[in-house]
Amino acid sequence: MSSGRDKISMIVFSGTDDKLIPVGVISQAAAALGYEVNIFFTGWAMFKLLKKPMPPVWPKEFEQMVPMLQEGLARIKAPTWLDMLRQAKSMGAKVYVCSMMSEAAGLKKEDFDLSIVDDVVGVTTFLEMAKGGQVLFI
Amino acid sequence: MSSGRDKISMIVFSGTDDKLIPVGVISQAAAALGYEVNIFFTGWAMFKLLKKPMPPVWPKEFEQMVPMLQEGLARIKAPTWLDMLRQAKSMGAKVYVCSMMSEAAGLKKEDFDLSIVDDVVGVTTFLEMAKGGQVLFI
Amino acid sequence: MSSGRDKISMIVFSGTDDKLIPVGVISQAAAALGYEVNIFFTGWAMFKLLKKPMPPVWPKEFEQMVPMLQEGLARIKAPTWLDMLRQAKSMGAKVYVCSMMSEAAGLKKEDFDLSIVDDVVGVTTFLEMAKGGQVLFI
Repeated sequence: MSSGRDKISMIVFSGTDDKLIPVGVISQAAAALGYEVNIFFTGWAMFKLLKKPMPPVWPKEFEQMVPMLQEGLARIKAPTWLDMLRQAKSMGAKVYVCSMMSEAAGLKKEDFDLSIVDDVVGVTTFLEMAKGGQVLFI
Repeated sequence: MSSGRDKISMIVFSGTDDKLIPVGVISQAAAALGYEVNIFFTGWAMFKLLKKPMPPVWPKEFEQMVPMLQEGLARIKAPTWLDMLRQAKSMGAKVYVCSMMSEAAGLKKEDFDLSIVDDVVGVTTFLEMAKGGQVLFI
Repeated sequence: MSSGRDKISMIVFSGTDDKLIPVGVISQAAAALGYEVNIFFTGWAMFKLLKKPMPPVWPKEFEQMVPMLQEGLARIKAPTWLDMLRQAKSMGAKVYVCSMMSEAAGLKKEDFDLSIVDDVVGVTTFLEMAKGGQVLFI
């Protein structure tokens, strides 16, 4: 981008567990490359970061392929998306939850797993953080 | 980005109503921050911009959570995505519909709500508009 | 972006056939505009690039609209997404498959259609290729 350190930001909306895998993988890889990494959980995905997270949800279209995927990831000893996100955080990645959507769901900051979530912020704050870098909507 | 005004563009393909919320929120917030905002509706999402728009469609995986989401958004008096999009447009955001997909669906420019849709354009035109800025695929 | 040639990269995860249409359209249009185009297939989408590709899968929410979409695309003589991807490749676009996900699925490079797939690479390699350009998560 224009100057300085590379930066990648993600807006994570879809709450199906399959799409959390790339959130973990990309966060971890980008942080290891020295990127600034900012992740904004909103929509259905924010319920995966609760102290009592939402149970796994898989896309209807690929439900029959999920056992194959899970067995394969276990066989190659892939870390879980949450472990990858923790690794990314240990290298500086930041994780935020959307203030509007959490308020609509009646959730407070202390309802989230604060070993993962750095803060609850508005989208304006997030856009300012993401400025000048790559942004993915997942 | 490289120079001048910040710019964010969105390619809105998914037509489920949940994903239209971030389209409204991000458009409004980015326009308020002074970003150039270009939104390109294609795929299933373009049917939400018809004069007679497609009825609400929610993702099968989260259908049971939709009443909670809708009640919560009403409780915090969140504007609808379309109201947020109108606010964004009042601050300069532009809304386009994909010419290829609308032609495939047998739709003409006058079938769309022209209080929202600025023009029907091809993806090449949209990529030129989006050049040098952030792009989200929603 | 920072300098030189425009660049657009796509991470293609969703394996439903509707979302492969914009992969083809954007690849073809961006390559024709002279962009560097890098496409990384992972998740469910990589199974569409096998020598024996996964049969068509459509999103549950819009299944009843699929015949209309397919008839419309045929009527306007739109190329298939794979033909558009081949056109993009003939103008320099590159197509990669995710090494982690293909290993988890027990797939080897030779299981993929190598007239389309240029290489099987890790996400770190892909992020380096995508550096300084636009990135879409599809």
